[in-house]
Formats: sequence, structure tokens, C-alpha cells
Amino acid sequence: MKWLTGNLIDILSELKQAQRNTNEENQQIEQQVREIIQQVNVNGDQALRQFTENFDKVQLENFKLSKEEIEEGYRRVEPEVIRALEVAKKNILSYHQKQKQYDFMDHEKNGVFRGQRVLPLERVGVYVPGGTAAYPSSVLMNVLPAKIAGVKEVIMVTPPSKAGIPDVILAAAKIAEVDAVYQIGGAQAVAALAYGTESIPKVDKIVGPGNIFVATAKKQVFGLVGIDMIAGPSEIGILADEQANPVFVAADLLSQAEHDKLARAILVTTSHKLALEVETEVAKQLKTLPRNEIAQAAMDAFGKLIVVETQQEMFDIMNGLAPEHLEVQMEDPVSHLHKIRNAGSIFLGAYASEPVGDYLSGTNHVLPTSGTAKFYSPLGVYDFVKYSQVTYYTKEALKEVKEAITILARKEGLEAHARAIDVRFEEEEK
Amino acid sequence: MKWLTGNLIDILSELKQAQRNTNEENQQIEQQVREIIQQVNVNGDQALRQFTENFDKVQLENFKLSKEEIEEGYRRVEPEVIRALEVAKKNILSYHQKQKQYDFMDHEKNGVFRGQRVLPLERVGVYVPGGTAAYPSSVLMNVLPAKIAGVKEVIMVTPPSKAGIPDVILAAAKIAEVDAVYQIGGAQAVAALAYGTESIPKVDKIVGPGNIFVATAKKQVFGLVGIDMIAGPSEIGILADEQANPVFVAADLLSQAEHDKLARAILVTTSHKLALEVETEVAKQLKTLPRNEIAQAAMDAFGKLIVVETQQEMFDIMNGLAPEHLEVQMEDPVSHLHKIRNAGSIFLGAYASEPVGDYLSGTNHVLPTSGTAKFYSPLGVYDFVKYSQVTYYTKEALKEVKEAITILARKEGLEAHARAIDVRFEEEEK
Repeated sequence: MKWLTGNLIDILSELKQAQRNTNEENQQIEQQVREIIQQVNVNGDQALRQFTENFDKVQLENFKLSKEEIEEGYRRVEPEVIRALEVAKKNILSYHQKQKQYDFMDHEKNGVFRGQRVLPLERVGVYVPGGTAAYPSSVLMNVLPAKIAGVKEVIMVTPPSKAGIPDVILAAAKIAEVDAVYQIGGAQAVAALAYGTESIPKVDKIVGPGNIFVATAKKQVFGLVGIDMIAGPSEIGILADEQANPVFVAADLLSQAEHDKLARAILVTTSHKLALEVETEVAKQLKTLPRNEIAQAAMDAFGKLIVVETQQEMFDIMNGLAPEHLEVQMEDPVSHLHKIRNAGSIFLGAYASEPVGDYLSGTNHVLPTSGTAKFYSPLGVYDFVKYSQVTYYTKEALKEVKEAITILARKEGLEAHARAIDVRFEEEEK
Repeated sequence: MKWLTGNLIDILSELKQAQRNTNEENQQIEQQVREIIQQVNVNGDQALRQFTENFDKVQLENFKLSKEEIEEGYRRVEPEVIRALEVAKKNILSYHQKQKQYDFMDHEKNGVFRGQRVLPLERVGVYVPGGTAAYPSSVLMNVLPAKIAGVKEVIMVTPPSKAGIPDVILAAAKIAEVDAVYQIGGAQAVAALAYGTESIPKVDKIVGPGNIFVATAKKQVFGLVGIDMIAGPSEIGILADEQANPVFVAADLLSQAEHDKLARAILVTTSHKLALEVETEVAKQLKTLPRNEIAQAAMDAFGKLIVVETQQEMFDIMNGLAPEHLEVQMEDPVSHLHKIRNAGSIFLGAYASEPVGDYLSGTNHVLPTSGTAKFYSPLGVYDFVKYSQVTYYTKEALKEVKEAITILARKEGLEAHARAIDVRFEEEEK
């Protein structure tokens, strides 16, 4: 882990530099993805079959899994895993229910009313990565908010492999009540969802994490369909004071670091003693981790121990970082909540360890990364609805604002706009 | 205008084809924009000055307008225009206030609480196009929702020209209480807002319409900063029955058509008689419009008179189109509201003419185009906030879910996640 101490401005600029690197483009991949999308748009299923053979080394006649195949996968999963997924589902539902929004209508004295309707998207596609990145918890996190929003059809795509789709992914799909599962992956899956093919229905929005090809494809179809944010490497920031337990802090830093060699784990504290103890604990705990090669690489490259003078500086640094996950392992943690302006998911106190949010608290684990918590939100029910404005005017009410409308329209050089109002009063003036 | 009658499926597929064309890419512009962004990122103000000289033919020392320059522009605007903008502001504020969202906290019996905070973005950039596309109403529509959301700093960029920034734009900026105005435009303005330069501060989100260079640049910086939707050509769909007034319908269709040669104006009705009358009225009203060349071109290329058999078909077609603006000029219009699933802004009844929404009703006129109302929303207060999740657990509450968390973490191969929970109970078990 790298130590950063001293001047606040230098620390912030060093951290900003480290984050910036994640936003680089890869033109070669962009071009390749563009061609894949074009092929799927033009040739539909035929292109899908070809790409699946080339990239996934699997020949498929049908992309869609049958109910029986999903059911069989579910039955092969250990009962305690099913039970744990069911508890997770219950908590995800109870948290996300609170995000539901309702229409409003604002009636004025003159008979005018204006309002906002909240309407669900009709069809949503959820991308679920294959291989070791196939997480059943992510299936629940992506699908359940869409279900609460009222989306009629939630379809899942996931790359095929000779070993088949992992049973636990099928179990999660069943538990989340996914409406259909298709075995396609990569940029071709994103293209199929965006344009529709003979066998894959076009969706209104695509969500879910994926590798660089999936992320690039999502960015390219953005606008044609909605997409969720483009996820970067996982991040944790921990704010800790001298009373924090270094064993807990180290364990939580490592839980992020094991995700990925690019994962970022950052401690910010006023206690030099704590930072030293955490450093020792990290080294100790790392030794026995199964994924210690990944975690070690992440800690070496991106792990940071930042020691500052004041609590105010701790919060300034964290707000500048805008981490995906933020733990507050400080005395009276709730009292500090109002100082946090930028963070995806905030965990308060020694026992709100970040993995509780990954699996069980019910808050979403699909979160803004790489500093984007400054402007993006966790995945939520609001991502699966859209609003429609509603306006009603009476003739009398329109007359009251006729002059203001026509003055502005003419000032903007839009005579037909002014006349659309004028014609409604022409009879009267004759 | 083109007549479409007959089979519903054919009509829908023809309309879909017409919409699809708007989503094409232009690789040459993409490359050019990529280079502009790169230059601004690396060379800052120096690159901005160079591009401004090349594209806008203006040499600038300072990009920022002084308070006095804005004030002077404001004072040169006719008092009745100022008054109309003030009425518009009042209505925009009263409508958008209703969109404000509040935090929630959900406390459980075991001491656990989970919640969601709603926090404003800190700094937002609003792009305002130059020339004839400089609309003061759009300044209000983009800036005021950000102000209501609590954004601390709303800055405006707009292309310089030898004639200076239009007075009415400066007046709108003052009325909307924009915090700073910078004279820069095009892709270079978007790049400056996304990366920050010596004189332009980096923002969290960029909103506002622009030409193809601006739209392409916004798409390229998406992810580094937030952006609003990419706007396509303006659209209106009108649902009308036999009692609708063809003069009103024609005038409203033309108010969209005058925007742009690519604008789409579409009538859907069960009344062949009404469609004929509207066609005649459009031809008549077109003759005397100042922008009749534009409106005529739009009507010829994209104007449609669609006559169907049943009201159900009318709604099926409109929901398939998902128009930016949708008028319901039908008897008892409110009774049809529940049938509309996809539309940016809905205008009910003969006197809710679409331009009332462009200027004065207070609903937003920045709306999803090209069928994207299926998944995008009007610009609103929600576009200028982000959410943070909050989770608090006690030791006892964590113990209750310890097993479920560690089972799922280990099933996903994430041992460090499981251990982050386990370490919190190790003392106890010894």
C-alpha cells in the first residue's frame, strides 16, 4: 500500500490522477465492436450464431433456455445457497419498495392542471457475465428493481460455454422471476438487445456489468436504447479514527482488493498509529487469501493509506474521491453523515462491513465507480421508469397567457408557434 | 404530407423505419471531435482559443463575461419580453418544485437502518447554442431545474460571434440566475466543461442542446461527466377525433414543422374527413409562414396523416412512436390519459396547444426525441441530483445474517468478503 501524508492539495491531485487513467478509450476495440453491432443489426440471428461460435466456441441452434433447463439448474444448487438468496431477495425488495415514485397532478384555480406520470419501461435486458464473474447476487440486484418498477418483461442474457450456464445463475434467475434467459454474450448480445433479432426481442434499456467489449457496445448503442452506467473497477474508501479496529478495516479493504487487480482500497485517517496497524494487518490477512495474487496486486498498485491532520480533511478527500463504497468506522458514525456529499453506498459503524451491502442488506450493489458518484446514483427503481408530463388548459386560462407566449415565440423567430395560439382566438376577435 | 391508412402492422413498421434513420453515426465527425477533445484536455485554454478562432472566427482573451456585460444585455431587451420570461420562470419553478425528492430512512426493529440520501450535483454546465438556435426559453428550462435541485454553481457556455451573445440570452441567464457565462461553443466547449481548463471549471454534468459536434462530444465524454439525453429532431404526434378543430390541429403540426427540416409532425385519427381538412388547412396556413420553406420541407418529408379504424389503433400507433410531444384533441381527453404509455409531454384538449408547453405552462420543453420517450424522461430536477445509499448494522443484527452473507460470498469465490464478516466475530468464538 502506498502512504500519502502531508499537503491536502497534493493528495487530492495525486488521487485525481489515479482515477483519470480509468477513462481512457481503446479505439481498436471500439472499431471491432462497431462491426459486431453492424453485423447483428443487418444479419440478426445468423450473425449471432457466427459470433457465438467464434468467441464462445459453442454452436447453438436456440438461444433461449427452456423453463425446464432453468428449473433443473435451480434444483442442483445447495439448499443453503437458495435460502440465502431468498433472504437477500426479501431485503432487496423491502429496500427498493421505498424508492417507488408516484404520479402528481397540480390543479390550479383557473382549471389548468399540470402533472407528472411515472410509467415503467416495457422491456429490459440484463447482461450477466460468464465464467468467474457470474455472480448470482448481481442477478438479483439488476432484476428486482426492474420488477418493482413494473417492467413487464425482464430478459437476461449470459454467454454460453461448453460447461453450460452456472446452476447458481439459473437459480438466481428463477428466484428473481426473470421472464426469459438467452445464451448470448459479448458485444453481440448487447447489439441483439438494442436492435432485436428474429429470436431476441428488442429492449428499451440494457443494464448489467460486462467486460470491455460489453461496456463499449453499451456505450455505442446508448441513445438507441437506455443503458445503465459503465462500471469501472470496484472501489472502497474507509474513513476511520483512532478507535477503529484495524483488523476490521484491513479485512474490508481486502474484500474490495480481491475483486480485481485494478480495484482500489483506500484508508483515510487522522491516526498514524491506526494506519500502521492496518498495514500490518493487511499483510497478515493477505497471506491466507485464496485470491491473494489478485488482492496483492491491487493493494500494491492502488491501495492507499492516507494520513491527514483533521477530520475536515478526511471528508474533503473522500468527497473528492467520490468512492463507490464508503465506510465510516468512526465514533458516532451517524453524526458524520451530513458531511458526505459524494459516495455510492455509505456504511456506518464497525459492523456495517461493506460485504453486507454486496449480499444482504438489500441496498443495491450496482454502484457508480471511478468518481462518478459525483453525478450517478446506485441502480434503483428509478432506472426502470420514465416520466411523462401532462398539461391541460382551458380556453380562459390560455387567454390569460396568450400574450406572454406569443411575445416569446416571436422573439425567438418562431411565428408558427405564436399562430398556434392566435388561431384559437380568431373567431372571437372577428 | 404522406397519407398512411390500412394495416396497423404496416403502418407501425413504416414509422419505425423512419425513426431508425436518425440514429446513424458519422465516423468522420466522431474522429474530428475526438481530436478536439484531446487537444482541450492536453492544452487547455490555449487549445480553446485556437478552436474559437478557427470555428467562430473570434479572438478572445477572456472567455468569461463580466456581470456588467450580462446586465447591459438584459437592459437592452424589451420590457414585455422580460415580463414574459419572468412569468415563464414563475411557472417553471412551481411545476418543478413538485419534482423535489426527499431522503428516506427505514429503521428496523433490530437497530438496522437503511436509507437513501438525495444530494445535488455540485457544478453543472449548460450549453446554449448560438445563432438562430439561441432560445432564451431553453436557458430557463435547463437552468431552473438545476437551481431547484440545489446545484451550487450553474455555468453557461455559448458560442461567441462578432455580433456578440444575443441580449435576450444574457437576459435569460440573469433571470435564471446563472452563476457564470463563458463564450465558448462547439465540441471544444463540451471538452472544457468535461476536463476543466485554466479558466473553465470542470463540471459534474453537461446539459443543453447543440449541433452534431456538440452532441457527438457529449456522447464521447459521457461517463467522465454526466450528460442529458442526445436530442434528435423535434416531433409532435396529435391524436384527434372527428370533433377536433382542423385549424387548431394544422397550426400545432406546423409549429413543430417550422423548427427544422427534419422535424416530424404526425396526425393520427379515425376521421378521414378531419385528415382531409387538416391537409387543406396545413397548405393554407403554410403560405403565410415566415419559415415556410423549412416547414414545407419538413411536412413533405416527415409529415403524416394516419387514418385508422379504431381508437385502440390510434393509441397503439402513438405508443409505438413514443413522440416527444403528444396532443390529445379528443372528446373528454383526460379519460384517455391512462392509454398513453410512451410520450415526453402530453397536452390534453383543444386549448393545450403544444407551444404553451414550450414557453409558459412550466412543464419542461427539453424532452426525449426519436422514440426515446420509451425510456427517457423530460429534463427535470431528478437530473441534477444523485442518490447515496446508507446502511447501519449493529453487531447483533450482523450476527443474524452472518451465515447467509458468508455462504453467498464463498459460493461466488470471494473468500475475503466472507472473512470481512467472520473477523468481526472471531474474538467471541475464541
